[in-house]
Amino acid sequence: MSEFRRDPLSDHWVILAPNRAHRPEQFAGDAARIPTRCPFCRGHEQDTPQTVAAYRQDGLPAADGEWLVRVIPNKFPAVDNAAFAESTAGGFFERRAGFGVHEVIIESPDHVLSLCVIDDEQMRLVFHAYQDRLRHLRTNPRLAYAQIFKNSGAAAGASLEHAHSQLIATAVVPTQVQNELARSLEYFQQHSRCVFCDMLSEEQRLGKRIVAEAPNFVAFCPFASQFPYEVWILPRCHQSHFENGPAETLGEFGRLVKGIITRMDAVLDRPAFNYLIHTAPFDKAALGHYHWHLEFFPRLIKTAGFEWGAGDYINTVSPEDAARALRSGI
Amino acid sequence: MSEFRRDPLSDHWVILAPNRAHRPEQFAGDAARIPTRCPFCRGHEQDTPQTVAAYRQDGLPAADGEWLVRVIPNKFPAVDNAAFAESTAGGFFERRAGFGVHEVIIESPDHVLSLCVIDDEQMRLVFHAYQDRLRHLRTNPRLAYAQIFKNSGAAAGASLEHAHSQLIATAVVPTQVQNELARSLEYFQQHSRCVFCDMLSEEQRLGKRIVAEAPNFVAFCPFASQFPYEVWILPRCHQSHFENGPAETLGEFGRLVKGIITRMDAVLDRPAFNYLIHTAPFDKAALGHYHWHLEFFPRLIKTAGFEWGAGDYINTVSPEDAARALRSGI
Repeated sequence: MSEFRRDPLSDHWVILAPNRAHRPEQFAGDAARIPTRCPFCRGHEQDTPQTVAAYRQDGLPAADGEWLVRVIPNKFPAVDNAAFAESTAGGFFERRAGFGVHEVIIESPDHVLSLCVIDDEQMRLVFHAYQDRLRHLRTNPRLAYAQIFKNSGAAAGASLEHAHSQLIATAVVPTQVQNELARSLEYFQQHSRCVFCDMLSEEQRLGKRIVAEAPNFVAFCPFASQFPYEVWILPRCHQSHFENGPAETLGEFGRLVKGIITRMDAVLDRPAFNYLIHTAPFDKAALGHYHWHLEFFPRLIKTAGFEWGAGDYINTVSPEDAARALRSGI
Repeated sequence: MSEFRRDPLSDHWVILAPNRAHRPEQFAGDAARIPTRCPFCRGHEQDTPQTVAAYRQDGLPAADGEWLVRVIPNKFPAVDNAAFAESTAGGFFERRAGFGVHEVIIESPDHVLSLCVIDDEQMRLVFHAYQDRLRHLRTNPRLAYAQIFKNSGAAAGASLEHAHSQLIATAVVPTQVQNELARSLEYFQQHSRCVFCDMLSEEQRLGKRIVAEAPNFVAFCPFASQFPYEVWILPRCHQSHFENGPAETLGEFGRLVKGIITRMDAVLDRPAFNYLIHTAPFDKAALGHYHWHLEFFPRLIKTAGFEWGAGDYINTVSPEDAARALRSGI
């Protein structure tokens, strides 16, 4: 049974999930667990919780044994879909039942470790699955947001090596998304423009932080990158909700994501990495001030005492140098 | 040459410090570097940058060869004390020269790896050195804040094993401290009380998250702990500035800190950890709404994609369970 606790000082939420302490790698070392039999491979569907959704090549539902992308509940969920969304206590220490949905998106039926070896059609299908899950989950009025993310490599928090990503849908909008929404709204009220659109046009004008471009997307190292070789991908056309993006650009998006991973592998010797998608909350109609995007963080350094205390990051590689290296690294 | 860059979306600062990329462990694995000759041991003063301050038992200045605690400039500083504090560019992408001071506090003349083996008098002297450096640095009108922190163990970001802590003083107040100041001021305006004092009395009333108590300090696992076994130490008497704390309580504070590390070592098998001190900015007179404190983070888990995206943490150990284990673990 999970619960949400609000920090009265930072206003951040903490998800208390004692159930996840049963995960095999809890407090273990760096090596990714390599099970003798991978539960994510096609044919081993019985080793996992029951299928939530499974997709064929054409995006339609697939049976066990014929799926290309499969979505299952996380076996050690951080949130609990049986919990009530009501607050269970008030006062100084605010807590809420940890209602939510925690799913795993298995990105290939084969035991592949990297998205780099997945073909373009399969990549498109992974992002189709993300969109499809978001469109489904947003119909649940108790859910406000879904954070899609990928942990690749043990140093990035992955506990199984078979290529997969995850989503955690919650009744509260995560703090960082709330901040982005508030800051971008403020900018919109001042300038009548989207801050992300302005950032994109400024990056294109300068050029020096651009990593790769595609007809509908641009990948660049952001001006104030928190981490070495951080990369963001933004759609050129303003759009607040990832799941409302046109299906016909998903293939192009998948190729660009795969290209970034390939470049990182070449320049940084196959680093562990996280990526995540920031999108607008479920209950919002299309927003003029918010612009969905994907953020990549190769896990090259350890955050230390300064960062935990300051909330500000020390980055030893300028985004201009990182972009130059990644541009040539393919 | 460092620079500060403001993220136009999150309002966070990033310190761009390409010089630190020359550190030996940059992007290296987990093993702490064990140099053939430790530059932090007494007698090896020539191996480090020149002494900034050195202390004898009585807290007075000490010569090379007789010091008990020694402060030196960081050889690979994140900030640059020659840089001008003025902003060098405006507009959409705001940057400032990376002015600041980055020092290392060597906690023992002997090659000890843990504060647990340091005697009480030596512990007192470490915290005396912190206070002394803050009192000195606050006289520099170009500096707004100093973040004191300790990285212990390679997994916590330490690059040398000899017991040491660090401080980074900057012209900007770190984002997290700004947030704590703003939130605690808001609480003070509503309740005419310090939120930290209220938290302390609530924790004492409940008792279940208390780890250890001393006449002038209380150690507890905070209600919304971001990490397993996170511990905070607060002075019982309201005080906004760490460096203004009475000298006669430093010995007691040191014993309590050492006790917490000893408990963590027993319960968690000598984990890597960070601690940091949150205190009020230099330019503030005593603040009724802010209360300095020390925060401990054992490094047991890896933050992953969810946390980077959400800004909210998943914690698999309830602070009540953590406090219970730490209370008995000595």
